[in-house]
Amino acid sequence: MKIENPNPIQWRFSERATQLQSSFIREILKITQQPEIISFAGGLPSPATFPVDVMKEAFDKVLTDSGKVALQYGPTDGYLPLRQWIADRLSEGGAKIVPEQVLMVSGSQQALDLLGKVLIDEGSKVLVETPSYLGALQAFSVYRPEFVSVQTDDHGLVPESLDNVAQGARLLYALPNFQNPTGRTLSLERRQQLVETCARLGLPLIEDDPYGALSYKGAPLPKMVAMNPDGVIYMGSFSKVLTPGIRLGYVVAPLGLIRRLELAKQASDLHTSQLTQMVVHHVVKDGFLDQHIPTIRQLYGDQCQVMLDAMDQHFPQAVTWTRPEGGMFIWVTLPKHIDAMALLDEAIKHKVAFVPGSPFYANSPETHTLRLSFVTVPPERIRAGIEILGKLIASKL
Amino acid sequence: MKIENPNPIQWRFSERATQLQSSFIREILKITQQPEIISFAGGLPSPATFPVDVMKEAFDKVLTDSGKVALQYGPTDGYLPLRQWIADRLSEGGAKIVPEQVLMVSGSQQALDLLGKVLIDEGSKVLVETPSYLGALQAFSVYRPEFVSVQTDDHGLVPESLDNVAQGARLLYALPNFQNPTGRTLSLERRQQLVETCARLGLPLIEDDPYGALSYKGAPLPKMVAMNPDGVIYMGSFSKVLTPGIRLGYVVAPLGLIRRLELAKQASDLHTSQLTQMVVHHVVKDGFLDQHIPTIRQLYGDQCQVMLDAMDQHFPQAVTWTRPEGGMFIWVTLPKHIDAMALLDEAIKHKVAFVPGSPFYANSPETHTLRLSFVTVPPERIRAGIEILGKLIASKL
Repeated sequence: MKIENPNPIQWRFSERATQLQSSFIREILKITQQPEIISFAGGLPSPATFPVDVMKEAFDKVLTDSGKVALQYGPTDGYLPLRQWIADRLSEGGAKIVPEQVLMVSGSQQALDLLGKVLIDEGSKVLVETPSYLGALQAFSVYRPEFVSVQTDDHGLVPESLDNVAQGARLLYALPNFQNPTGRTLSLERRQQLVETCARLGLPLIEDDPYGALSYKGAPLPKMVAMNPDGVIYMGSFSKVLTPGIRLGYVVAPLGLIRRLELAKQASDLHTSQLTQMVVHHVVKDGFLDQHIPTIRQLYGDQCQVMLDAMDQHFPQAVTWTRPEGGMFIWVTLPKHIDAMALLDEAIKHKVAFVPGSPFYANSPETHTLRLSFVTVPPERIRAGIEILGKLIASKL
Repeated sequence: MKIENPNPIQWRFSERATQLQSSFIREILKITQQPEIISFAGGLPSPATFPVDVMKEAFDKVLTDSGKVALQYGPTDGYLPLRQWIADRLSEGGAKIVPEQVLMVSGSQQALDLLGKVLIDEGSKVLVETPSYLGALQAFSVYRPEFVSVQTDDHGLVPESLDNVAQGARLLYALPNFQNPTGRTLSLERRQQLVETCARLGLPLIEDDPYGALSYKGAPLPKMVAMNPDGVIYMGSFSKVLTPGIRLGYVVAPLGLIRRLELAKQASDLHTSQLTQMVVHHVVKDGFLDQHIPTIRQLYGDQCQVMLDAMDQHFPQAVTWTRPEGGMFIWVTLPKHIDAMALLDEAIKHKVAFVPGSPFYANSPETHTLRLSFVTVPPERIRAGIEILGKLIASKL
């Protein structure tokens, strides 16, 4: 049946495909998943926080009560009761968000892809933070924009710096709460300035908020979407507050845009699992997250403190780092002459891993930066790993 | 907190987004889902075939045994044991397919999107059948190809017609088994000719096979991927043999291409639900589909026969239609002066619905064609609906 000696195909890839690159983090993870390595390289939430029994009961309940519906094709925009729940929750901040503005997606990464598909042409100017979330750079890159890095400092993005670069830009992508990779939080004053500046400039602002609920101390700051629902595109996710493996996120946008995103979603994968959406709705509808999220905050906050204490003790004075008030990451700035990529090679020999900072920069990488995650590493191993890393850095001074 | 009187954003969409269109079928479905309408418009599998209890037990088992793994982020290429199962099953035809060639996706529609992303530039020539699957036209359209329709007849695509049009084409997209929309099957001889022709021309051939297992009579014909694994890209799905709501499909391709598709998948949505993949593997690994698929074939085959019998009885002689040997669809050709779109408006007034054929044509639609699905309609309603439709058509002669 097999044909004889066929000509080998010369694959001709699209121009966008020739520049597709694997996420550097995903490559590092393959190396650092060996159990003897103390890995601060992960970006994964701690499985200790996954409510397995609650999920199991919810799958059982939904399949028992509504199996035939849950297992059938569903609407592209998503499961209405869950969209209503999201809209209601986002409206608590004072803005009026309606379910028609909510599109369910297969994890936040898909929202980034759909936004790129719908808003970015080849050469479009796209504004991102310095540094920015790697997954967003990767998703947008497919559509071949020109990235422009916007100035940031310890309080996050600097709104004043926008006026110089916003001309003709298609969007600004920002991650205001406990940013990946820096752990920084955009201050309340800056949020208001940023929303006003974007509104004045007519610049669409994407507020990516996967970690917003993971504030260690008190309530999170107000969301920017609540300050201007007509100009801000909000991205949320169940990955960090429930579980990531089910792939469920959402994007909230003004109606004109959300309809385009829905059409792009339909062409991309028809819709996100109806079963998953019904299960998550069953889990969250009676307030489960309000009990569950504090347990995640406690775990991550404690481990963050262990890492910060160990860094205070073991890191040389010439090194600086962020002190996150939530989320999963600490950002480290080494003396300029230390290349974090070279440091990683040595660290792995000493059984410690982290993510070098360079891949998080859209332009002009600062090679003396690195990202540490503390969420999946037990306290004693955090202390041991930080001590090793401190000595290694000290040896370079 | 809300800012005062912001300027409304003038959304500037990408060029590709300005031509995004909703699937005509999805629009029709909204109208025809009213229970009083006898709808032959659906493309959905029958929920009567969904093994709800089997799925429920599998979710329970996987979450009990491996909850923390199933709910964590997973690899982009997919859950290895399921990829191995797929590779083994596809290798039964004689070709040697390895799991590294299998990429798990969130339903076949995503495979179409990823193939478009990786293989199509603006203006690329893309060859499709006449008519072709609407979802493929929609997915590829986003990447702005020039579609070229390839000649077909009752035995499917005509391989001889390729030589005239293949020059410079990026790919040929074909659905050889019980095609959507025509229900036609590509004959064995044609399969061999087609694979040989594509190999000779260096033309990548996409074999989309969602319905292949749903053969009413005997074993399905050999897959084209088995005839030339180095030149054929195979797409499979669990939607029609298990359930569609879980969104699980796969694409099988030579290694050079599959790596690009994997990178595109990573940028698009990181990975497909690990939980879903583990559950499906648990369901299929011990041969469940071998008992289950015959029950679907029986149901669909019986209902297809009911519809064909009713058409023989009630449709005027001037009408012709396909006699599918599997799958979910019958394709009807009316006398040329009858416009199926206008007929639909009238049919809906008489409480019967179908899908007009025009949207399935990439070029030069034949407006006197239509698609009927029989899978979700009980026999007595099939007979009643076909009688009404027959009278309506007769009144136009």
